[in-house]
Amino acid sequence: MRADKGIEKIVVVGGVAAGMSAASKARRNLPNCEIKVFEQSEHVSYGACGLPYYISDVIHSPDNLVVMSAGQFKEKRNLDVFIRHRAESFDARKKTVTVRNLDTDRVFTETYDKLIIATGAGAVLPPFARRKRDGVFALRNLADGMRIRYFIEQQKPKRVVIIGSGYIGLEMAENLKLKDMDVVVIEKLPQVLPNIDADMAALVQQELEANGCRVKTDSEVESIEGDNKVTAVRLASGQKIVCDLVIVSIGVRPNTAFAVSGGVSPGRTGAIAVNQKMETNLKDVYAAGDCAEAFHTVLGKPVFIPLGTTANKQGRIAGDNASGKFARFHGIVGTAVVKVFKQEIARTGLTLFQAEQAGFACTSVSISGHSRAGYYPGGKKIQVKLVFEKENGRLLGGQLVGGEGVSKRIDVLATALQQKMTVEELTQLDLSYAPPFAPVWDPLLIAANQAVKK
Amino acid sequence: MRADKGIEKIVVVGGVAAGMSAASKARRNLPNCEIKVFEQSEHVSYGACGLPYYISDVIHSPDNLVVMSAGQFKEKRNLDVFIRHRAESFDARKKTVTVRNLDTDRVFTETYDKLIIATGAGAVLPPFARRKRDGVFALRNLADGMRIRYFIEQQKPKRVVIIGSGYIGLEMAENLKLKDMDVVVIEKLPQVLPNIDADMAALVQQELEANGCRVKTDSEVESIEGDNKVTAVRLASGQKIVCDLVIVSIGVRPNTAFAVSGGVSPGRTGAIAVNQKMETNLKDVYAAGDCAEAFHTVLGKPVFIPLGTTANKQGRIAGDNASGKFARFHGIVGTAVVKVFKQEIARTGLTLFQAEQAGFACTSVSISGHSRAGYYPGGKKIQVKLVFEKENGRLLGGQLVGGEGVSKRIDVLATALQQKMTVEELTQLDLSYAPPFAPVWDPLLIAANQAVKK
Repeated sequence: MRADKGIEKIVVVGGVAAGMSAASKARRNLPNCEIKVFEQSEHVSYGACGLPYYISDVIHSPDNLVVMSAGQFKEKRNLDVFIRHRAESFDARKKTVTVRNLDTDRVFTETYDKLIIATGAGAVLPPFARRKRDGVFALRNLADGMRIRYFIEQQKPKRVVIIGSGYIGLEMAENLKLKDMDVVVIEKLPQVLPNIDADMAALVQQELEANGCRVKTDSEVESIEGDNKVTAVRLASGQKIVCDLVIVSIGVRPNTAFAVSGGVSPGRTGAIAVNQKMETNLKDVYAAGDCAEAFHTVLGKPVFIPLGTTANKQGRIAGDNASGKFARFHGIVGTAVVKVFKQEIARTGLTLFQAEQAGFACTSVSISGHSRAGYYPGGKKIQVKLVFEKENGRLLGGQLVGGEGVSKRIDVLATALQQKMTVEELTQLDLSYAPPFAPVWDPLLIAANQAVKK
Repeated sequence: MRADKGIEKIVVVGGVAAGMSAASKARRNLPNCEIKVFEQSEHVSYGACGLPYYISDVIHSPDNLVVMSAGQFKEKRNLDVFIRHRAESFDARKKTVTVRNLDTDRVFTETYDKLIIATGAGAVLPPFARRKRDGVFALRNLADGMRIRYFIEQQKPKRVVIIGSGYIGLEMAENLKLKDMDVVVIEKLPQVLPNIDADMAALVQQELEANGCRVKTDSEVESIEGDNKVTAVRLASGQKIVCDLVIVSIGVRPNTAFAVSGGVSPGRTGAIAVNQKMETNLKDVYAAGDCAEAFHTVLGKPVFIPLGTTANKQGRIAGDNASGKFARFHGIVGTAVVKVFKQEIARTGLTLFQAEQAGFACTSVSISGHSRAGYYPGGKKIQVKLVFEKENGRLLGGQLVGGEGVSKRIDVLATALQQKMTVEELTQLDLSYAPPFAPVWDPLLIAANQAVKK
C-alpha cells in the first residue's frame, strides 16, 4: 500500500491533548500513512482540566474525562496508540526514536519520517515535597487525580493545605471544600492568582474566605512534616499548620528531556522553541502543546503558558504540517478563566503589572457593572479592568471577576486583542442586549467609555 | 450666566433612551447651557425592554424600570424635563420648536441653538387592529405595559393570541405563559423570528411548542372579532381562534412626523437619515435612537433596526456633537439576543437569506456544540451558524441558539464583524476555557474550523 505524499510514517510522542490532536489531524490528511503514538502513562486523550471536579465527585468517573481510549483510536481513526510506552530519546540524523515498554522493560527503535513531540509539562515539586510521603500530591495527570480521589475515599482527610494559588490550587480549594475539608491556601506572593492584578485578586481572596477557606499570602513553606504520612506544613515564619493532606500546585515546567535528547533547542522560556508551523530547529521534528512555547501576540515574543486550548490548536497545526499540509498558528493572547466557588475570574492579554514590566506606557480603568439589566432578577456584579496604552489607547489586556457572564465577556476582549483594537473601537462594539443577559450598557462598554475619558 | 462655547440652549424632543442619553451627555459637556427635554408621555428614561417581564410580574413594579424621574433629572443633572409635552413641529430657519402641553392644551414656542430629535418608533397597527376594543394591545411604551398588566389583573384573560413573532411577540408568549394563559402565536411568514434563518428558527418554534405555546406560521390575520371586547381572531384561512386578549407585535415604524415638519429628510428606510455625527440634513438638527437610521457596516448602508443599545450610543454621540464636542458613531452590525423560555437566541450581521438577498456570494455552516465541557454537569446544547463569503472567507454573520452562554458568544462574532475578520482568523481566537464555561474547542471555534474546511 502506497503512503501519501512520500510521508510513510509519523511518530507522535505523548498522547493527551496535543499529541492526539496531531495524530488525528494527520490521519485525516493521510489515510494510508502509518501513525504511531507513544504515551508513557496508561491514559490518552483525557480532559485534564476536569480533574479537580473528578476528585470532588462533581464528575463521577474517570471514564467521563476520557474522550477515547487507545483501542477506540485504533478502531475509529486507525491510529496505533501505545500506552505505557516511554519514548526516551531520538536521533534526528537516523530518524529513529528509542522507546521503552514500561510493562516489559523492552527497549526498541522506531523509524519516522515526521516526529511530533507532545510530551507535555510536569508539576514543579519543591525540595520539601520530593520525599515520598502519604498524603502529599501534585495534580497533573489522570493517574494523579485517581490517586488523590482514592486517598480521600480511604483516608478521609479533614484538613488540607494547598501550596500555590494558581488555577489548579484554587479549583482544588473549591472542590476539597465540597468534600467538607478545612482548606488552607498558602501563597508566597502577596496575592492569590498571580497572573491577575492585585486589586482583582483581592475579590478572589474574598470569595475564598467567604466560603470558609483560609488564605495565607506572603507565606513561604519551609517543610512538610510527618514520617510516612503528612502531619503538618511548616512555614518559614515558624507557623505550623496541622493537616492530613497536601496539594502542591506551584506551577509546571515543560517536559523537554526527550526533545533535548535528539538536539531540539529549548527557547528562552525553557519550553521548546517552535515557529508558526510548530517546527522545531530540527528538520521533520515538530513540537506542540504544554512542552512548547507559544507566541504571545501582545507581548510580541514566545511565552510558556501551557493550557489545553493552545495544546489542541497547536496539535492540529503540527498534525497538518507533519502530514504535508500547510497551517500556521498565529499565537495566543493569554486568555484564561477559572471558577472559584460562585465567582468567575477571567483574564486576557497583559495585567497592568505585566504591561508595566514589559515596558508599555500604559494605564488602566476598573469599573463595577452588572451581568443583567439592573431590574431583571438574578443578576450578579461584574468587575471589569482594562489595561491600555496611554498614547494611542490600544488595548493590552482585560480582567473580569463576577458572578456570571464572565467567561464569554473575556472572549470579546481576547478577540479585540487579536485584532489590536483600541479602547475607542471597543466603545463602538455592537454587543447583544436583552434584560436577562446584559444591561443596555454592557460592563465592557462602560469600562471602554471610562478608558476613553482617561 | 454665560453659556459655554456659544451654545446657550439645547432642545431635546423625546425623553427615553436616546433623548435622555443625549441630554445627559450634553449637560456633562456644558454645565451652564440651558437644556430642555420634551416628552409626550408621562415617563422618561425607562427600560422599555423590560416591559414583557413587568407584565408577568417577573419585575414587580414599573418603578423598577424607571432609571430616573423627570424630577431626579432636574435635581441630579440640572435638566429641565417636561413630561406630557408634545413637540409638534419646528422651524429650522427661526430655530424654534412648537410644543403643546397635553394637560393644559397650551401651545408655546421654544427657541434652540441645537435641536436633538429622539422621537422613537411606534407600533405598526394593521387596519384590523385599529378599532378601539378592550383586550387588544400593542406593547411599545411604559403606559402600554401598565395597561396590559392592569387588564390582566382585572379581566384575568385565559387565551391570548399574539400576532407577530419577533422579539416582543416571543417574549410576550413566554411571559403570558407564565401567567398560565393559553398562548397562540400567529406569524404570516413560514417561520418565527424572521430575522434569523429558517433552520435556526425551527429550534425556536420547538422551544415554544415544548412549553405549550401553539405556533401558527404561514398564517395571516383577517380580522379581530368582538364588539367592545375581543372575542376571537379570524385568520385568512377562515379559522377562528377564540381568545380574550390580543397582542399585536408585527413591528415598529419610526416616528418622523415632528422631524419632517421642519424639513428633516428621512432616508430610504423611512427613518431619519443621519451622518456619523448624528446630524440630519438640517444645520444644528440631530437625530438619534429609534427614529433614526444606523449605518450597517456589513451591508454598507443605512438600516432601520431600532434597538435600545443603538439608541443609547447614538444619543450620547448626538449629545456630544450638539454640545460642541466631536464624536462619531461607526455603525452597527445588527446584533440582538432574545430569551424564549429556556433557550437563548442571538444573531449578528446577516443571515444566509439576508446575505444572499444583498448579493453576497456566500455560504454557511451550522454545527451543534456544548456550552460546557462534555463531562461537566449542567451543560446545554448550542447550535452555531456562521455565514461567510465564499471567496475570501470573510464573516458576514452568525446565529446561535442554545440553553446558556449564547448572548456573550454572539458578542465575539459581533466583534469579529466590526473588525471584518475571516473565518480563518476566527479559528485562531484564543478563547477562554475551563470545564464549567466551555469545551476546550468552543462551539464558535468548531464552527469556524468547519467553515474553513468548506
